[in-house]
Amino acid sequence: MEVGIIIITHGGLAESLKQTLFSIVGKKEKVVSISMSTEFTLGKLCEEIKQEIKNLAVEYVVIFTDMFGGTPSNASLIVAREQQNVYIISGVNLYMLIAAVNLRELNKDMRIEEYIEKIITEGRKSITNVNELFKNRFFNK
Amino acid sequence: MEVGIIIITHGGLAESLKQTLFSIVGKKEKVVSISMSTEFTLGKLCEEIKQEIKNLAVEYVVIFTDMFGGTPSNASLIVAREQQNVYIISGVNLYMLIAAVNLRELNKDMRIEEYIEKIITEGRKSITNVNELFKNRFFNK
Repeated sequence: MEVGIIIITHGGLAESLKQTLFSIVGKKEKVVSISMSTEFTLGKLCEEIKQEIKNLAVEYVVIFTDMFGGTPSNASLIVAREQQNVYIISGVNLYMLIAAVNLRELNKDMRIEEYIEKIITEGRKSITNVNELFKNRFFNK
Repeated sequence: MEVGIIIITHGGLAESLKQTLFSIVGKKEKVVSISMSTEFTLGKLCEEIKQEIKNLAVEYVVIFTDMFGGTPSNASLIVAREQQNVYIISGVNLYMLIAAVNLRELNKDMRIEEYIEKIITEGRKSITNVNELFKNRFFNK
């Protein structure tokens, strides 16, 4: 399984996520970001996504968007309807990107559906009430 | 309930999250970011967090960190052990910040524990397999 990763968000968030990801796991191939500025129309964003997919030239593309219902997510959905190998995960955070990169390297035989599910599980698990985790050790509240 | 929000991450991600948040919900008071550069030590980061908490001067502080186990999260934990009104949520994404700001404005009588739980629930819910959501409508995969 060969996977390319595209991060798409409102504003500069996508690029920051990519840079922070690289600062932790090292620079990786086939990870790109599209930061949607206010000048972007839905149509322009779709074109940009298609171009990045073409450049990646991989078997599967996983698009990470900031939130469901936003323009980055809607544009991705339009493209994914046209292209069978494009998958979308909303609610991107740093940890799920780390998981996506690591799983891609370590489990090359994984099915794409399983890969998507694992990333989502890892992303959700990474959202924690830290005080609660340490309640018995540190906190009296 | 009066809540201040601090976003702390590796690199410029925290500032990007804040800027993207403001571009969607408008500029808000009592929302600050600390972007940890590579020069930051754990001690320096703790000092920075304490200073921001002092500046916020609110009843409760909720710190959003990029991921559990990283320096931003560890420094927050050190501060939260010393200060009873500090809560930490790891795995920050854009949607949970929108939820945090909206809930703060709309539910002033909410208990802090309930506020934290709701943000975590919203954050986790925002991580979705978008193709799966639209499977019956759009996709044949």
